[in-house]
Amino acid sequence: MSLAFPSAVIENLQPLIDGGRYPVKRVVGEDLTVEADIFKDGHDVVAAVLKWRTLGESIWHETVMTHVDNDRWRGVCSLYENTTYEYTVEAWTDTFSGWQHEFAAKFKAGIGNLTSEKLEGAALLEAAARRARNSPDLDRLLEISELIRNSEHAQVNDIAHSAELEVLMATYPDRSAATQYAPPPRVIVDRIEARTAAWYEFFPRSAEGRADKGSTFRDCLARLDDAKAMGFNVIYFPPIHPIGFANRKGRNNSVTSEPDEPGVPYAIGNRHIGAPNGGGHKDVEPALGTLEDFDWLQQEIRARRLELALDFAINCSPDHPYVAEHPEWFYKRPDGTIKYAENPPKKYEDIYPLNFRCENWQELWDEMTSIILFWAERGVRIFRVDNPHTKPVPFWEYLTAKVRERYPDTIFLSEAFTKPKMMQALAKAGFSQSYTYFTWRNTKQEFIDYFTELTQTEMRDYFRGNLWPNTPDILPVHLQEGGRPEFMIRAVLAATLSSVYGIYSGFELCENAAVPGREEYLDSEKYQWKARDWDRPGNIKQWITRLNRIRRENRALQRYDNLRFYSADNDAILFYGKLTPARDDIVLIVVNLDSSRRQNSYIQVPLAESGISDSEPYQMHDLLTDARYTWHGSRNYVELDPQTQPAHIFRLRRQVAGDKFA
Amino acid sequence: MSLAFPSAVIENLQPLIDGGRYPVKRVVGEDLTVEADIFKDGHDVVAAVLKWRTLGESIWHETVMTHVDNDRWRGVCSLYENTTYEYTVEAWTDTFSGWQHEFAAKFKAGIGNLTSEKLEGAALLEAAARRARNSPDLDRLLEISELIRNSEHAQVNDIAHSAELEVLMATYPDRSAATQYAPPPRVIVDRIEARTAAWYEFFPRSAEGRADKGSTFRDCLARLDDAKAMGFNVIYFPPIHPIGFANRKGRNNSVTSEPDEPGVPYAIGNRHIGAPNGGGHKDVEPALGTLEDFDWLQQEIRARRLELALDFAINCSPDHPYVAEHPEWFYKRPDGTIKYAENPPKKYEDIYPLNFRCENWQELWDEMTSIILFWAERGVRIFRVDNPHTKPVPFWEYLTAKVRERYPDTIFLSEAFTKPKMMQALAKAGFSQSYTYFTWRNTKQEFIDYFTELTQTEMRDYFRGNLWPNTPDILPVHLQEGGRPEFMIRAVLAATLSSVYGIYSGFELCENAAVPGREEYLDSEKYQWKARDWDRPGNIKQWITRLNRIRRENRALQRYDNLRFYSADNDAILFYGKLTPARDDIVLIVVNLDSSRRQNSYIQVPLAESGISDSEPYQMHDLLTDARYTWHGSRNYVELDPQTQPAHIFRLRRQVAGDKFA
Repeated sequence: MSLAFPSAVIENLQPLIDGGRYPVKRVVGEDLTVEADIFKDGHDVVAAVLKWRTLGESIWHETVMTHVDNDRWRGVCSLYENTTYEYTVEAWTDTFSGWQHEFAAKFKAGIGNLTSEKLEGAALLEAAARRARNSPDLDRLLEISELIRNSEHAQVNDIAHSAELEVLMATYPDRSAATQYAPPPRVIVDRIEARTAAWYEFFPRSAEGRADKGSTFRDCLARLDDAKAMGFNVIYFPPIHPIGFANRKGRNNSVTSEPDEPGVPYAIGNRHIGAPNGGGHKDVEPALGTLEDFDWLQQEIRARRLELALDFAINCSPDHPYVAEHPEWFYKRPDGTIKYAENPPKKYEDIYPLNFRCENWQELWDEMTSIILFWAERGVRIFRVDNPHTKPVPFWEYLTAKVRERYPDTIFLSEAFTKPKMMQALAKAGFSQSYTYFTWRNTKQEFIDYFTELTQTEMRDYFRGNLWPNTPDILPVHLQEGGRPEFMIRAVLAATLSSVYGIYSGFELCENAAVPGREEYLDSEKYQWKARDWDRPGNIKQWITRLNRIRRENRALQRYDNLRFYSADNDAILFYGKLTPARDDIVLIVVNLDSSRRQNSYIQVPLAESGISDSEPYQMHDLLTDARYTWHGSRNYVELDPQTQPAHIFRLRRQVAGDKFA
Repeated sequence: MSLAFPSAVIENLQPLIDGGRYPVKRVVGEDLTVEADIFKDGHDVVAAVLKWRTLGESIWHETVMTHVDNDRWRGVCSLYENTTYEYTVEAWTDTFSGWQHEFAAKFKAGIGNLTSEKLEGAALLEAAARRARNSPDLDRLLEISELIRNSEHAQVNDIAHSAELEVLMATYPDRSAATQYAPPPRVIVDRIEARTAAWYEFFPRSAEGRADKGSTFRDCLARLDDAKAMGFNVIYFPPIHPIGFANRKGRNNSVTSEPDEPGVPYAIGNRHIGAPNGGGHKDVEPALGTLEDFDWLQQEIRARRLELALDFAINCSPDHPYVAEHPEWFYKRPDGTIKYAENPPKKYEDIYPLNFRCENWQELWDEMTSIILFWAERGVRIFRVDNPHTKPVPFWEYLTAKVRERYPDTIFLSEAFTKPKMMQALAKAGFSQSYTYFTWRNTKQEFIDYFTELTQTEMRDYFRGNLWPNTPDILPVHLQEGGRPEFMIRAVLAATLSSVYGIYSGFELCENAAVPGREEYLDSEKYQWKARDWDRPGNIKQWITRLNRIRRENRALQRYDNLRFYSADNDAILFYGKLTPARDDIVLIVVNLDSSRRQNSYIQVPLAESGISDSEPYQMHDLLTDARYTWHGSRNYVELDPQTQPAHIFRLRRQVAGDKFA
């Protein structure tokens, strides 16, 4: 029987972003837990499966869903391929279970004549036998069917509830009138680095730390080795493309520059330098080297088991080849000249913004996409995208889908420091990761509220926060004022509140000189070569190295949405933790948020969540210092001196025997 | 410019049931408040309107939406027609406001040359003038445009911000690249009785209260007059159709009946009685009269400004004409005979259930729909539907839509006492009202939790709870045991917790004789004629009359989702209220939930919500007793004796002058 209307009701499917308009996100190996309300009219028994397949696959994989409570059903699958999947739920009437219950009820009530009921049961088995036609189960089903026809009530009731028959009937259900939830929502399964990574950003032209002369791609090896030693695994370069001459800016954002000044890497494009691909986004700045040098450097990066992330900044200097070849892509003033970028009354004379709604927008969108594909073909698979919120959201949906079609391993990081709904919209539209407000969260309640929103609401299904304590654009006030302890604190928070974080170089050196009254770096290397002693005394490289090692060695810290906050009496003490689902890695972090003074607190260790009874001793192993404490009960005392150790990162170890903890 | 992609992002539209799959509900004259997240990339200023129209109308009505906070926008419209509407949101870039802000920012920054900006502004006005082509505004816009071209900066800035120009530019916005939310959700606008009514249910065959002989339609006038006098406005009859002979049940649900017993009105259909339409759902039981008698009675009902509700029970007695004419619509046993209804081990031999998934289900569904249309054509527009949860939800969606197409004033009440999600699904699918768990809610916390769910969550947009303290099927334990005070309490709760409620006759007489150990009436009139003294001593008809008058005279009680609970110290005292939006009708209800003893409590009057300052005296006018108390401050004492007055229904009156309160 096939019906033109759904047989069962399947509603309130979760996860589901905007009714299925946008995909949810997972990484390879993660589970997808799907829930739905499933029910049917009358007394029929319902059965349901969770189904999933990669886009384009013709057959579905499936797993049984189980009833949780109150018509809510749940199924779980694991996704192992770095591609886009779709999933759905199928439900049908479990006629055999219905018959089983009915027969048992009537038998127990002592109803004398159950001939009709026996015949109905036998018919169900015969129908199942027809569905089992290529299997040895066919004969067995017919055999049991005969038994049911010819046995006494008590015997039929036993047969009906035998494990063998239940398994057989569950193997060949009648799903001809099944209902399937439609349309199936999608899930983008990224590779693991989309969720778990530590980024290190540096300007290759400052690699050697010389103020008098720019470094090249060939000069970057020491920086890579240093980043590698600190435990980072993604190296991120601000734009490496040719920089325009026209209206080139000088040090500290001055509107004019000296002839020898290197310019701003975000003023992209220079058609006057004879670069092989016209001098735009598909070339490299000659002061850094050639495309071959770039390829060589990428090889060196890979050899260190690091990965390169490039910056995708859609800005054109007046010298960009697009300006000459496609003036129709830009905004025009009434006199026909191309408009500069502005944020009135501010002007950016070295940059022309592109008009993503111009007449031939489709051509422009495709050209933008081709830039990503160009670098992807050269091996780059991570792109940090500059200011995506100033371009249409549908453009990003288009670009990321196009790129993923060819390179599903591509990771896009959205650098949208803007209003919350736009940040969320970009994540939904296709970005793998997003910058966050972490940079400006300071108080305990701010951390709890914001990170609960990120990791415990629907946002966790599509938005992955990549935490940055600083960027070339942002030196927040607390880093300017808090000194070395504050850098240590922000490092711990960034490295443990999320599974993905990064620092902009100089952070490890506690650089904190700002333009007075602003959150900007003084003598920012956006505008100049930067002199630096990469081993400057007072640096926190050891601290960062330790943090990254702890992240590598603790699977709980590699997950994103397992963050939970716990109680600490003192408002300056933030207490939170991450557990693996099997509770075989329990990491509890205590941070003194006050960089100026020692703070202490009683904290409430989550014993029940950790599977530890109140009377059991347990070990708190501080992974930062290697100190081990044996604690009893949930309420315990901590004290943290920001000068020496502003945080504990405890691994909670369970007692296995005598004084042994594992 | 027309784009192939949305220009603005419009997301998270509210109200929206299951992503727009189901309509929201309103009644004529109610507001529809629509909110959405609306934003756009970059610095552009956005404008938006809420649009609505009846299904089939070609043009939209619209009203301006305003920005609430954080990219959330809101618009409100009122719906006056008893039909189905659709609504949506349209947003576009407000280029004029963008230019205004830009010009002002540059002017204030003292930028010397703003020629280009002036030309841009003038061009915007000229474009608006083209859109104003059939209006006198055209010339004025061109005039101001000239002014902008030729004036000094300060003057241009003044003109740009003049109220005249702002209004002109808002009148002719450029919406050519506007984005519209799609597809538009629907809203069913019912007539007022779908939300606000008091129902009185009685069996016409027991109208005279005689056990020896059934009453007819012609005997019902006294009952109508009594119901009218008590203040009810809907008269609801259990099924009035021919009752089958086959397996007719006797008193107290006995499986056999005496020849003179009247049978169960729910065992519908008797093709052996020579009724004009075959003796099924389109005929009336001859013991009640003829179709002409029915029409006469309906006229009498209308003459009293009452309205009739009929019962739609899809049950067929073995004598129903369908059984002979459409055996294929029924379930079969293996031997080919038609199956009785069962809820194993219980059997209902006097009823055959229909198979809504049979081969020619479409024919069956249409026949069922034709039953409602038959009675609708005879003037009936309210249908209480028996056990809708044992038929497919899509069937109800089909039937209610078909009926509403022809008779949009039809009201459907779902009698689904089942699991919450099915009850919700039926409401979403098209039922105007639903029975609720009110009948079994007893403690203060149960009332607060359940009615907060009904009236303050998304449910309020599609599910209207019609409260029944009793039904012919349910005599709850508290009514069996609590005596007259309990009946008074349940009457107050039903009449004031929802805007729509009903009682099954006998309730006003405090009938409480039950089948021992069950929540069923002893000597239920489902199975027999019932002897009754309709003015039996100890009745609560005065109390009910008073309650219905209070409902009629207080608009706050006629609204559904304005219910709020307030604080009372004593767990036996429930304190809640209803306010009109303008706060010109404030009704506060205090109920002693304990029918066995006097209870007192301090209660916290919601002064701030009521717009009354802490120092202001106010009058609490008890509408049940007409007593008036002058109170000061929010904390006040109440004491309620269930024997005399188990509740206060206060109208809070504000002081207007001296000792006058209004």
